[in-house]
Amino acid sequence: MSGNSFGKLFTVTTFGESHGPAIGCVIDGCPPGLALSEADIQPELDRRKPGTSRHVTQRQESDSVEILSGVYQGVTTGTPIALLIRNEDQRSKDYGNIAESFRPGHADYTYWHKYGVRDPRGGGRSSARLTAPVVGAAAIAKKWLLQQYGTVFHGCMSQLGDIEVPFQSWQHVADNPFFAATGDAALIARMEEAMDQLRRDGDSIGARIEVVASKVPVGLGQPIYDKLDADIAYAMMGINAVKGIEIGAGFKSVAQKGSEHGDELTPEGFVGNNSGGMLGGISTGQDITVSIAIKPTSSIRTPRRSIDKDGNPVMVETFGRHDPCVGIRATPIAEAMLALVLIDHALMHRAQCGDVRVATPKLA
Amino acid sequence: MSGNSFGKLFTVTTFGESHGPAIGCVIDGCPPGLALSEADIQPELDRRKPGTSRHVTQRQESDSVEILSGVYQGVTTGTPIALLIRNEDQRSKDYGNIAESFRPGHADYTYWHKYGVRDPRGGGRSSARLTAPVVGAAAIAKKWLLQQYGTVFHGCMSQLGDIEVPFQSWQHVADNPFFAATGDAALIARMEEAMDQLRRDGDSIGARIEVVASKVPVGLGQPIYDKLDADIAYAMMGINAVKGIEIGAGFKSVAQKGSEHGDELTPEGFVGNNSGGMLGGISTGQDITVSIAIKPTSSIRTPRRSIDKDGNPVMVETFGRHDPCVGIRATPIAEAMLALVLIDHALMHRAQCGDVRVATPKLA
Amino acid sequence: MSGNSFGKLFTVTTFGESHGPAIGCVIDGCPPGLALSEADIQPELDRRKPGTSRHVTQRQESDSVEILSGVYQGVTTGTPIALLIRNEDQRSKDYGNIAESFRPGHADYTYWHKYGVRDPRGGGRSSARLTAPVVGAAAIAKKWLLQQYGTVFHGCMSQLGDIEVPFQSWQHVADNPFFAATGDAALIARMEEAMDQLRRDGDSIGARIEVVASKVPVGLGQPIYDKLDADIAYAMMGINAVKGIEIGAGFKSVAQKGSEHGDELTPEGFVGNNSGGMLGGISTGQDITVSIAIKPTSSIRTPRRSIDKDGNPVMVETFGRHDPCVGIRATPIAEAMLALVLIDHALMHRAQCGDVRVATPKLA
Amino acid sequence: MSGNSFGKLFTVTTFGESHGPAIGCVIDGCPPGLALSEADIQPELDRRKPGTSRHVTQRQESDSVEILSGVYQGVTTGTPIALLIRNEDQRSKDYGNIAESFRPGHADYTYWHKYGVRDPRGGGRSSARLTAPVVGAAAIAKKWLLQQYGTVFHGCMSQLGDIEVPFQSWQHVADNPFFAATGDAALIARMEEAMDQLRRDGDSIGARIEVVASKVPVGLGQPIYDKLDADIAYAMMGINAVKGIEIGAGFKSVAQKGSEHGDELTPEGFVGNNSGGMLGGISTGQDITVSIAIKPTSSIRTPRRSIDKDGNPVMVETFGRHDPCVGIRATPIAEAMLALVLIDHALMHRAQCGDVRVATPKLA
Repeated sequence: MSGNSFGKLFTVTTFGESHGPAIGCVIDGCPPGLALSEADIQPELDRRKPGTSRHVTQRQESDSVEILSGVYQGVTTGTPIALLIRNEDQRSKDYGNIAESFRPGHADYTYWHKYGVRDPRGGGRSSARLTAPVVGAAAIAKKWLLQQYGTVFHGCMSQLGDIEVPFQSWQHVADNPFFAATGDAALIARMEEAMDQLRRDGDSIGARIEVVASKVPVGLGQPIYDKLDADIAYAMMGINAVKGIEIGAGFKSVAQKGSEHGDELTPEGFVGNNSGGMLGGISTGQDITVSIAIKPTSSIRTPRRSIDKDGNPVMVETFGRHDPCVGIRATPIAEAMLALVLIDHALMHRAQCGDVRVATPKLA
Repeated sequence: MSGNSFGKLFTVTTFGESHGPAIGCVIDGCPPGLALSEADIQPELDRRKPGTSRHVTQRQESDSVEILSGVYQGVTTGTPIALLIRNEDQRSKDYGNIAESFRPGHADYTYWHKYGVRDPRGGGRSSARLTAPVVGAAAIAKKWLLQQYGTVFHGCMSQLGDIEVPFQSWQHVADNPFFAATGDAALIARMEEAMDQLRRDGDSIGARIEVVASKVPVGLGQPIYDKLDADIAYAMMGINAVKGIEIGAGFKSVAQKGSEHGDELTPEGFVGNNSGGMLGGISTGQDITVSIAIKPTSSIRTPRRSIDKDGNPVMVETFGRHDPCVGIRATPIAEAMLALVLIDHALMHRAQCGDVRVATPKLA
Repeated sequence: MSGNSFGKLFTVTTFGESHGPAIGCVIDGCPPGLALSEADIQPELDRRKPGTSRHVTQRQESDSVEILSGVYQGVTTGTPIALLIRNEDQRSKDYGNIAESFRPGHADYTYWHKYGVRDPRGGGRSSARLTAPVVGAAAIAKKWLLQQYGTVFHGCMSQLGDIEVPFQSWQHVADNPFFAATGDAALIARMEEAMDQLRRDGDSIGARIEVVASKVPVGLGQPIYDKLDADIAYAMMGINAVKGIEIGAGFKSVAQKGSEHGDELTPEGFVGNNSGGMLGGISTGQDITVSIAIKPTSSIRTPRRSIDKDGNPVMVETFGRHDPCVGIRATPIAEAMLALVLIDHALMHRAQCGDVRVATPKLA
Repeated sequence: MSGNSFGKLFTVTTFGESHGPAIGCVIDGCPPGLALSEADIQPELDRRKPGTSRHVTQRQESDSVEILSGVYQGVTTGTPIALLIRNEDQRSKDYGNIAESFRPGHADYTYWHKYGVRDPRGGGRSSARLTAPVVGAAAIAKKWLLQQYGTVFHGCMSQLGDIEVPFQSWQHVADNPFFAATGDAALIARMEEAMDQLRRDGDSIGARIEVVASKVPVGLGQPIYDKLDADIAYAMMGINAVKGIEIGAGFKSVAQKGSEHGDELTPEGFVGNNSGGMLGGISTGQDITVSIAIKPTSSIRTPRRSIDKDGNPVMVETFGRHDPCVGIRATPIAEAMLALVLIDHALMHRAQCGDVRVATPKLA
C-alpha cells in the first residue's frame, strides 16, 4: 500500500537503502514445490550488478544473495521467501556535498518535500541499487514460468543516446557491455567511444530498452484496470529513470489506420504483432513486446543551477560513483519486471479460471 | 483484485457491459463533507458521450447519471457513492455477425480464450462505453482536488493520424469536435476532411492525446512501485486502445544528455519541465504532463482475414456504429484517469504524512 | 480499502443506505461459466427479508433483486456482477427524533464523530438492511461451492436471551420464525412469548447463532494472518451487532487440556471436532463450526439517558420499526458470510496450489 | 494476499520458520519522523521471548533485533523498516519423530494437505515463534500511537485452565510469570503448582487473555467490513491457538436486554462499556476491551492416536521443548496485534477525514 510491494499474488516487498546495512525482499505467494537455491538467483543478480565494465558505476558489490526462509530441503514450501543482500561498498562521504541541496532531475527534492527527512547516502531508497532484490525475486518467477509454460525472456538496448542499434540476434546480448543485440563490432566500438566521451565530459545519456516474453499462455490479464498492458506499464515505470513505455506498435499506432494496425488471423496464427501480444488487456499467446525510454542519470559532474533546502541558489556538481547511462544495466531489470507481471497474472488466471488454457500451437 | 476496481483509497469499482441493462460504478473512499449532486457529474459525462458529432459513433445515449447512495442532503457522507447509468440504445443485432469470429485487433479473441464464454453485444465488457462510469467518478475527484489544492485538469488531441496539432490554447478545446487546442480553422477543416474520408473508406485511425494537471501538491507518490508515474502509466494503459505513454520528455529522454534533461532549479522555481512534474516517482509541484498513443479502432468495414471459433478462415467486416477514431473521445477519459490517480495519492499522502505540505508558491 | 468491500478474489463491494433509493453490490471475481439468474439469488434474500413474522421489523420490502451485469445468456462471463435492490418502504419520519441525539449502544455517536455528518434515516449505512446485498452475493458463492466441492451450509439460532435451544435437526430451521433447529413446540412457544413480552416492554434481546459448513475441501486458508479462522472472525464481526465469535470448542478451550482438546486421528478420520474444522488456520476437511454472539438491538422504546450533538443531556426513546432481536434474521446472514470466506479461500488456494486437493473420503 | 502481511497502511510482512536461519519482518507505511532505534523494540521482544521461567519453553533465544533499513540518523524516513532476528537455538532433531505423522490438534496435517510439502522443524512456519517479528513491529506502532494520541496498552491472563484470576491492577502483571493482574500470592502459587503438575503429566492447558487500549481516538474504524471489531477479531484469530474472541460484553450480550446492554451517555461521558469501546464498528473513545480464548498446546508428551502420511494408524508423543500453555506468552502478542490494528485504522482515518478528531475529554 505504501508502494514497496509489487504484485498481488506473487508479492515482492523490498527494503533497504543504497548505503544501509542491507537490501532485500520478501516474496509471498511463490507456489510450493519449486526446486530452488541461491544458485538459481545469483546469475540474474550478476547480470545487473555494478562494476562489470568501465561504462557502469565502479562501486564494488558482490551482490551475494542469502535465502532466509521459505525453502526446505531445496524446495519451496509455499511460505514467504526472504532474500538478503548485504551492502559491502558504501562510501557515503562521496555524497556529502549533496545532502543540503537538490540535484536537478533527482528525487532529492521530492523526498525532502514529501517526508521532511531523507537519507542522502547514495540516493537512499531512490537508488537504482534497489532493483537488485527485484531481479532476485524475478529469477524465481522466471524459473516457475519456464517450468509451467516454457516462457522465456529476452531484452536488449536498442538505442544509446542517438545511436540506434538494429536488432540482429539475442545471442549477441551477452557479448558486449551494453546488452546490445548486435554483432556489429564497429557499432559497439562507436557506443564505447560515446560512453568514454561522456565520462570525460562529466555528463550522462539516455537509452531505449526492448524486452520480449515468448511462449506466454493466452488469457493472462484482466479486462478493465489490471489489463496486462496496464500492469506492464506500471511495472516498467517503477524502474528508476523510465519516462516512456510502448506495447507493440506503441506510438506508431497514432499514424496507423485500422486496416493496417489490427493483426489479421489465419488458421496458422496471427499475421503481424502490432498488438505486442495483448488485445483488450489480455495476452494473445504471441510474443509480448515492450519498449521503454530511460532518461539520463541526474547525478553528473557538470555544474548545474539549483537551490538548497532554504531556497538559496547554489551550483551543484555530483561526484562519487554513478552510472553515466543507467540504461545500460536496465535490461535485466526490465526483464525482471515483465516476469513479475506475468507470474502474477498467471496465478490470478488460475484462481479465476482454473488451469491456464494453452492456445493451440498454431495460434500461439 | 479481478481488475474492475481502480484506486486504493478512492476506489472506483465499475460494472456493466455495452448492451446490458446498465453500467455504473461504486466509489468507496470519497471524503465526507463534499457538496455533491448529479449536476456536478453530468457535464463531464456529456463531454465524452457518443453522438455529439458526425465523427464519433452515432449511438444515442443520454448517459444520465443517478446517484444511488453516499450523499445525504447534498453532501457526501463518507460512505460508498454508487452511480447508475441506464443503457438506452442497444442495437445488439448490429453485432450478430461477429459473435462467431474474431475481429483483427479486437479483444474478441482474448476474452474467448480466457473465459471460454463472452458477451459479444457491442464488445460487452471490453467496450469503450465502460469509460463512462469512470468519467463520472472522476468528476467527484476533480471537484475535491480543486477545493483542496486548486488542482485543475486540461487535455487535448495533439495528433490525428499523421496530422499534428500544434498547441495554441486550452480555450479552443471545446470549440471543435476533436478536443484540439487550436483556433486554426484550416487545420480543423483538414481534420474534418480526413475523418470524412475514413468513414467513406470504412477505415479508422489512431491519435495522440495530451493531459496536464496544474497546481498539484508537491509530495504525492510513493518511492518504489507506486510511483506517481507508474500509477499514471497504469491508469492510462487502462483506457481502451492505448499503446504508449510518456511522462514529461518521454521518449525524447533517450537522446538527451543529463545536462540537458535534468530541470535546473532557481529560487523562482524549476527551469523547464522535462520531468513532467515528478522526480523519483513523487510530484514536484510543477504541471504533470502526460502523452498517450491511441491505436485505430479495430471494428471497421474494411474486409479482413480472420478465423472463427473453430479455427476456420473467414473474412470479417464490422458493421454497426463505431468511432472511426476512438482517440476523439479519449481526452475527457484521460483527464479522468489522471484525476483518479491524483486523488488516490493525495489521500495516501495524508495517511502517511498528515496534511499535504504545499510547496512555496515560488517553487510550485 | 475504505471498508465496503469483502473478499480478495471474490470481492463484494456494497453500497446504499437504509432509506436511500437503492442498495446493492458489485461482485468482482466470480468464475465464468456458472449458470446464474435472479432465481438463484431471490430465495436467499427471502430468508432474511423483513416482515416475515411479528417478531421482526414490520418494514415491508420485497427485496427484489435485479442482475445488472456479468451474466450473458444465463451464464456468468467472469466480469462484474452488479445486484440492485430498490428500497420500497422508507418512512424516514420515524427517525426524525433521533437525528439530533445519540441512541445508547448505536452507531449514531461514532458516525457523527468520525465523519462530521451522517444520514440518520433508518440508521443510514449502519442499518442491518445492508446485509441484504451480501446475502445476495453469497447465494452465488454457495452455488459455485456446491457445484465444485459439494459444500453445503446450515445455520440456526441456539440461544435467544436466556433461552437455550438444544440442537435437534437442521430440518426444523425453516419451520419456525426463529431459525431454531428444534421441533419442540413448547420451546418455540416459549420463545414466541418471550418476544411478545419484549415488544410489549419496548425492549430488545440478544441471541446466539451457530453456522456450519460441510464438505469443505482440505487446505483452504493461509498460515499466518489470513488464517481461515481469522477471516471467518473478521467476516462474522462484520455483521451488525456481533460481539463475540467462537470456532470449534471456542471459549471452552480455555479449561481444556491438550490431551482433551486435540482431535485424534484414525484411518477412518478425525475423532471429534474441537478444532471446528481448521488447524493452523487451514481447513481440515471436517465441518467448519462457528458460533456468534449478537447483542440486543439498540433502538428501543424504553427511555434512556443520552446527550445531543451539543453535549446536553436528553432522554431518548426510539420509535419506528425495529427488530426486537436482530439475531432472529442473522442466521442466513452468518451463513452468507461464511460462504463468502470459503469461496475466497478456495480461489486463493487454486491460485497458489492449482486444483484443490480433496482429502480422501475417509479423512474428510 | 498470501496471508503473510498484516495491515493495509502500516503493513507488516513477516518471514521465517522456527528452525530456519532467521525470522523477521518488513514494515511498510511507518510515518516519517519518528525517533527509533533497536532500544525501542527490544524490551517488547524480551517480554515474549522464550526461556524466561520454567513454565514456558526452555529454548534459549536472545531474540536480538537488528534494524536493516528505514531509519536514518535515529529517525524513520517513511521507507520500509526491515527487522531481522537470527535464530540461535534450533535443535531440529527434537522434532524428527513427527516429520512423518500428524500431531492431533496441530497444523502438521493441514500444511501437508495444502502444500504437499512442509518444513517439520519446530513447526516450521506454523510455530508461535513467528509472533516475535510482529511484537517487534508493534513496538513501533505503540510508540507512534503514544506520541500521537497518548494511547496505551495493557494485557493480562485472566484465566489459566479452570483457575480464574480476578483483575486487581495492571501493576502486578510484570511481577509474576503468568502476566496475571493480581497481587494474590496464593493464587499465583496455585497457578505455579498447576503448571508444574501439567509438566509432570506431559500435558498442556488453555488460557484466557484480556487486552485493553486506553486513550484511543474516537472515529477509528470503517462502517461495514473493516469495522474496528472485525479487524481486531481478525488480528486476534491470527495469533496461534486462539479459538474465541469477545469485544466488550462479548457472549454475555446474548442474554442481555437492550435496556441493559446499550451504554447510556451523560455529559460526563459513557455510563458503562458493554460496547468494548466501539459502536457500529467505529471507536467511541472509551477503552477498547478484548478477551480471547487460547487452546492448549497440541505438542504434548501424552501418547495420542494419529495417522502417518500414508494413512496408517500410529501413536504420537511429542518430545522437545514446548510451552505447556501457549497462553502464558500470549499477552504481549495480543497487545501487539491490537496496536497494529489501531495504527492501521488511525492512518486510514487520517486519509479519509484528515486529522483525527479527538473527542472532548469528558466523552473520551
